[in-house]
Amino acid sequence: MPNVPTITAFANSPDGGRGMARDMRVRWALEETGRPYAVRLVSFEELKAPEHKALHPFGQIPTYEEGGLVLFESGAIVAHIAASGPGLLPPDAPGRARALSFLFAALNTVELPIVEREQAGFSERDDSWYAERLPLLDRRIRNRLDDLSARLGTSDWLDGAFSAGDLMMVSVLQRLPANVGILEDYPTLVSYVARGKARPAYQRAFAAQFAVFLQSQST
Amino acid sequence: MPNVPTITAFANSPDGGRGMARDMRVRWALEETGRPYAVRLVSFEELKAPEHKALHPFGQIPTYEEGGLVLFESGAIVAHIAASGPGLLPPDAPGRARALSFLFAALNTVELPIVEREQAGFSERDDSWYAERLPLLDRRIRNRLDDLSARLGTSDWLDGAFSAGDLMMVSVLQRLPANVGILEDYPTLVSYVARGKARPAYQRAFAAQFAVFLQSQST
Repeated sequence: MPNVPTITAFANSPDGGRGMARDMRVRWALEETGRPYAVRLVSFEELKAPEHKALHPFGQIPTYEEGGLVLFESGAIVAHIAASGPGLLPPDAPGRARALSFLFAALNTVELPIVEREQAGFSERDDSWYAERLPLLDRRIRNRLDDLSARLGTSDWLDGAFSAGDLMMVSVLQRLPANVGILEDYPTLVSYVARGKARPAYQRAFAAQFAVFLQSQST
Repeated sequence: MPNVPTITAFANSPDGGRGMARDMRVRWALEETGRPYAVRLVSFEELKAPEHKALHPFGQIPTYEEGGLVLFESGAIVAHIAASGPGLLPPDAPGRARALSFLFAALNTVELPIVEREQAGFSERDDSWYAERLPLLDRRIRNRLDDLSARLGTSDWLDGAFSAGDLMMVSVLQRLPANVGILEDYPTLVSYVARGKARPAYQRAFAAQFAVFLQSQST
């Protein structure tokens, strides 16, 4: 299939089909822009093998291959897809700049404390300090959500029409599951995430990654 | 001064003139591409004021204003500067894609554990768990540096000529001061950072931010 990009995703995603893995962002972006794509599933062992590290130096998913083009990092891939056609960036330069600023903010400013808390849950849950540190981690997340909800206000999206900035911000926020109990204190952000997930392109992307999960369970 | 972009920087940088603040990345990118710029200094109080949050929703520096264009997040600003002229991205599409992948990797994959350790030093140094957690934080950083040094090998830069990806990666790595004792275990990365800092454009950017520090000390 020439002209159809190939992305990589976990053969066995640790998220149990919840769409938390970072291929979801890329699938969503491709669906928003109406582009078909192929998926190559990668095992945890293959992630660390030289063949995969030639594509992704840090041994992660997703990657994106299209002709001679090889990208890694979900942010770079979504930015590339957004710049390649209509649907994810406004036509005017100032609007594009703001959308890309929000995309970077999602990854470097908002995701950082969310991943920090997630990692603590994975690797520090049995440590003596886990419970005592949680309020500190939660405060770091809330600092960002205070500012984000203030900027969003009662708007549907961060800056007019839905953009790659919203796609990435919703993707990052939905890493905060309900049992964490933080996002729920920001009703406008809960609605914002729900609005993103209700988009037909998100639904198609979610179904595609869920099919991989179901397949991995049956084999 | 029309056509001269204005960036923001800390009036009183908490780094004591060491060039750790994120305006340094933007100054460096502007110097690499030979573009003059103006700087507006912002106090900590002004960062959180509505006027600044209208430019940067998360109340941080740097911002970038140029005509009607307003950007925030150092990643978005450096990517914009890199795309606006020669000097920071190769001319071919695959090369540009790889450079931007490394820029995103610097911010979302490599900087995350480095900032996590930095924040622990700021806000958890007096907590009972600080010393016990440090090896865990160091391991997370080393995992990334293992992969990064493997990719760099004995090359001068990550992918042929110096690019925006190198600019951001060097900027992130130099957040690891010698007293942390991690970077020093990777001699090729120490050389890589030194090579970046030796560039005339870095030197000019560093001198400009240092002048702000000296000025803040004398008033």
